[in-house]
Amino acid sequence: MNDTNKPGLEICLSPALLHLHDTVGKIVVIIDVFRATSTIAAAIDNGAECVIPVATVAECIKTGAAIKNSITAGERDGKIAPGLQHGNSPSEYPSSFVSGKTLVLTTTNGTRLLHMIKNADTIITGAFLNISAVCEYLIQQNKSVVLGCASWKDKFNMEDTLFAGAVADRLQDHFHHNDDSVRAAIYLHRSSGGKDYINFLRDSAHYRRLSAYGLEADMEYCASTDLHPVVPVLKDGALVSSTRIMTEAVMPLL
Amino acid sequence: MNDTNKPGLEICLSPALLHLHDTVGKIVVIIDVFRATSTIAAAIDNGAECVIPVATVAECIKTGAAIKNSITAGERDGKIAPGLQHGNSPSEYPSSFVSGKTLVLTTTNGTRLLHMIKNADTIITGAFLNISAVCEYLIQQNKSVVLGCASWKDKFNMEDTLFAGAVADRLQDHFHHNDDSVRAAIYLHRSSGGKDYINFLRDSAHYRRLSAYGLEADMEYCASTDLHPVVPVLKDGALVSSTRIMTEAVMPLL
Repeated sequence: MNDTNKPGLEICLSPALLHLHDTVGKIVVIIDVFRATSTIAAAIDNGAECVIPVATVAECIKTGAAIKNSITAGERDGKIAPGLQHGNSPSEYPSSFVSGKTLVLTTTNGTRLLHMIKNADTIITGAFLNISAVCEYLIQQNKSVVLGCASWKDKFNMEDTLFAGAVADRLQDHFHHNDDSVRAAIYLHRSSGGKDYINFLRDSAHYRRLSAYGLEADMEYCASTDLHPVVPVLKDGALVSSTRIMTEAVMPLL
Repeated sequence: MNDTNKPGLEICLSPALLHLHDTVGKIVVIIDVFRATSTIAAAIDNGAECVIPVATVAECIKTGAAIKNSITAGERDGKIAPGLQHGNSPSEYPSSFVSGKTLVLTTTNGTRLLHMIKNADTIITGAFLNISAVCEYLIQQNKSVVLGCASWKDKFNMEDTLFAGAVADRLQDHFHHNDDSVRAAIYLHRSSGGKDYINFLRDSAHYRRLSAYGLEADMEYCASTDLHPVVPVLKDGALVSSTRIMTEAVMPLL
């Protein structure tokens, strides 16, 4: 990963460390494995028109009310937040339910990080559910990348770092880096064995917190790879499939 | 590490994350392996009266001028900083040179973190050179501990995290934790094999930076374990040997 002719790769371990990373002109991958960016991958893969990430329940209600055919969703303490319609489980968004709809999703950590990013070339979201699609996209784009862990209230967490390490491990031949966060995340990923992620993640602060709400099956789903092979890209405040953006860009030529 | 009757253990990966850790009434270990806390261990073990850590070269000169029998020390870009007398290599402080003297040491990252700690029970410094002494001290004290990585300009670094992981690994039976930073640091330590630290650290940002100044031998020294079995404890702004503090506390009874 030392060929400086290749685009660069960095990992931001917490939003509180974002000021140390220059995101100008780069692709930033927002990572919130438990569970926002997993739910986003599932909803978009299952045909959601788009996902609008918002920070607060009030904003979620207001945004949802202004959009036809929308679903407002979000949880507080493992339950659907009062005033919203739906929860934050990726498995709760089958095609039969979400197709053609706009999902307005309130997520604290992921949305906060997303709104902190300034002047990036592109912002996408990543999770194990779409890891291969994200890696292929990053290789194709051939631009420098910052993998941004949403973490939990700014605290370093295992699941986002493990995912960042898994991506970095796959991208080794295509990017260069001199970033100890990348080195450590790759070691963490290799410690996991690179396969049975949920088993590795059971001993983590977030797994313990969410399992107290009975969300073990949810987290097992989030730790599965490539069930939802899409790349959600931020466009005008909403996450849409990269395929759709490409189609729209080509359309005028047809 | 889950018995909550035992004292707690946390790792702060960067001064920029310190606000997430409650240090009140705890023992905080300042870690700056390359090279401040390595040099502090060497100087105190070799008989320095004390080490006064200061943030700037100007402060170093001023403090040194006010103290008889002092050495002012610090580097900028791998060379002795203009106006100071000595460098920042742990091997430069043999007993014949440092015994009985006060070392006034300017270190950017370590001193900054040290001054950020509020209301800790005790602040000590740790490095591979005194790792066993630090671990034994922490077990004896039986109080909750925050291992504080000085890092490099707030950036996560390998050498301080590796050391924190080595300490956490050794303390498993004596402390409890539910901290993903501790989990990840232990995985990092185990990835290193737990022995040949310098070989593991050669692929790190700080090693690369300092080796450009020809400081490889210095870093190899810093990655050696237990050459200086002392515990430097902060008392009235100066680091002194824990043995001396204990002796002084007992003295009035004699």
